[in-house]
Amino acid sequence: MSNVRIQRVIEKMKKKGLTQLLVSDPFSIKFLTGVNVNPGERLYALILRTNGKHTFLLNYLFFVKDTGFEEVWFGDTVDQIKIIIDNIDTKETLGIDKTWPARFLIPLQEACPDLKVVWGSDCVDDVRAEKDPEEVALMKKASQINDSVMLKVKDFIKEGMTEKEVAEFIDNEYLKAGAEGVSFDTIVCFGENAADQHHMPSETRKLAAGECILIDMGCRYKGYCSDMTRTYYCKSADPEQTFAHDIVREAVERAEALCKPGTPICEIDKAARDLMDEHGYLKYWTNRTGHFIGQEDHEYGDVSPLNTNPAVPGMIFSIEPGVYIPGKYGVRVEDLILITEDGHEILNHVDKKWEIVG
Amino acid sequence: MSNVRIQRVIEKMKKKGLTQLLVSDPFSIKFLTGVNVNPGERLYALILRTNGKHTFLLNYLFFVKDTGFEEVWFGDTVDQIKIIIDNIDTKETLGIDKTWPARFLIPLQEACPDLKVVWGSDCVDDVRAEKDPEEVALMKKASQINDSVMLKVKDFIKEGMTEKEVAEFIDNEYLKAGAEGVSFDTIVCFGENAADQHHMPSETRKLAAGECILIDMGCRYKGYCSDMTRTYYCKSADPEQTFAHDIVREAVERAEALCKPGTPICEIDKAARDLMDEHGYLKYWTNRTGHFIGQEDHEYGDVSPLNTNPAVPGMIFSIEPGVYIPGKYGVRVEDLILITEDGHEILNHVDKKWEIVG
Repeated sequence: MSNVRIQRVIEKMKKKGLTQLLVSDPFSIKFLTGVNVNPGERLYALILRTNGKHTFLLNYLFFVKDTGFEEVWFGDTVDQIKIIIDNIDTKETLGIDKTWPARFLIPLQEACPDLKVVWGSDCVDDVRAEKDPEEVALMKKASQINDSVMLKVKDFIKEGMTEKEVAEFIDNEYLKAGAEGVSFDTIVCFGENAADQHHMPSETRKLAAGECILIDMGCRYKGYCSDMTRTYYCKSADPEQTFAHDIVREAVERAEALCKPGTPICEIDKAARDLMDEHGYLKYWTNRTGHFIGQEDHEYGDVSPLNTNPAVPGMIFSIEPGVYIPGKYGVRVEDLILITEDGHEILNHVDKKWEIVG
Repeated sequence: MSNVRIQRVIEKMKKKGLTQLLVSDPFSIKFLTGVNVNPGERLYALILRTNGKHTFLLNYLFFVKDTGFEEVWFGDTVDQIKIIIDNIDTKETLGIDKTWPARFLIPLQEACPDLKVVWGSDCVDDVRAEKDPEEVALMKKASQINDSVMLKVKDFIKEGMTEKEVAEFIDNEYLKAGAEGVSFDTIVCFGENAADQHHMPSETRKLAAGECILIDMGCRYKGYCSDMTRTYYCKSADPEQTFAHDIVREAVERAEALCKPGTPICEIDKAARDLMDEHGYLKYWTNRTGHFIGQEDHEYGDVSPLNTNPAVPGMIFSIEPGVYIPGKYGVRVEDLILITEDGHEILNHVDKKWEIVG
């Protein structure tokens, strides 16, 4: 498995004319090697080479063994920049991935003023973006758990509950359903809090009749993430809000309908954006339409006007337009979409339409 | 307060000959402005200029207002690299801080091949390293809570308990004592697990008589961290292990004794390292002697042979030598040290000597 994945990266490196690529993102390294390290501020990198000789840079503090790669071990008391220089060809262009921090990159550039470094992140991120069957199976399972918990929480919510109570219910149900935990902090917002996309569930804010309930939630299953949003209403719903909900849902559906191999991703964004614009909602929605997802809730790649790449089988991303009216209410509807050989599959099966609950 | 801190950064920029510095580390930005944002993969930066005109780059998704700085707002659908270029002087050298990822830095360099970027992280990190009185007070309080919980857990531990039980006790006591939570995942290791510096508390591993108990723990109080390690023994102690403990403790004490303004930090490391070497323990201890700490458990700056900078009043760092014998046992003793005007103050007051507990 690892070797096939690395081979896919090597092919992309060749196309880009790169002979060496420094991979620093721990998720990319886990994807390519199975090795799982949280390096903190310490140097941790896998140097991939098109000649097939790959090198792992490892601090003695990382409890890792028998990686199957050439391993270069070092402690905290040696110059980490020298370790990098000793393990790259400074006469050849070096590709770098997205997460490598300036703490290493700038000193490396200062030590080797003639070294040419270029953006090489796509060589590995584009491979990660096209999930293989093993990954697709895990992503489906994570979304299946997410669906089942959304149905449960919809029944559980009652007028008078706090946002925090609802969020804790979700978190517990994930564990009962076999997930490892959440893929991001569970978002539960009532009423005007739904207009704040970074609102954290409050221990005191209680649900009142007539309010919207925005739930954005995801779990992690064997290292892979789910992510879904639904917006409901407590006991009754304001027509202005349900109108916005209907438009948002239609925007999701229009975007989803375009999902198939070959469609430029910006067109998927455009389908949602045009409908939102038509109804005057763009001033209340400044986000991208969606983000890629996999081992991380937000992975490299977005569904936005800027992404002109075509959709490719195996890609999984969110579609999540919304309307956020500060101080009043919010609506968001979000599904995860898998691009298949002949179209797409929606990974979430909970009805997107608004409902009265509580 | 913020202005004094920014002024200290500006002074360092001037000394370095920098007119503009891009600060991306959310902790640095919080330190300088009070603004607290978790940007995820989105662009978030404060551009400081020696001419006193500073600019905040902010995504509409960040719920922030009235920062008091020039604010440049943008959404997900615009080119973030262009936002950066529009807000720097591409004819002047640009300082960059440590955390800025290649996802922004390399495309910026590719778009502006003539732009000179240099390491500017020290301008802000060196200021953060020298805590001001407000920060020192919070750090002392965090360590005071840590001391009180260490004394409680020492009484709580009993033969037959699991590592996880002990860790959960610690985590709960922190909350009772008024901390916000842990500053890192609490480490509790019994016996041979103490040799694994990244061991996570086990739900099944039970404490047996004669085993070592290594506890490395820290809490967060009003955004500032504590961090301390003690090693105890259950019911009885093996002389080989207590000998190692005595040497490790003496290494801590020798390093601490050197802590005063002007001492090169590498000499503090050397004091511990030399004693460890004398007793043949260097092959079981490949770490640096310590790390700086503040808003983050590990902040920029370490106590290692590589750090030749002098100690300066306000610096707070850990001293934590250890002996780790794979498959057998581990010993670590760790204090936090504050450099004062005329010497140092040890922030931890729990006796460092080994004890029999359980």
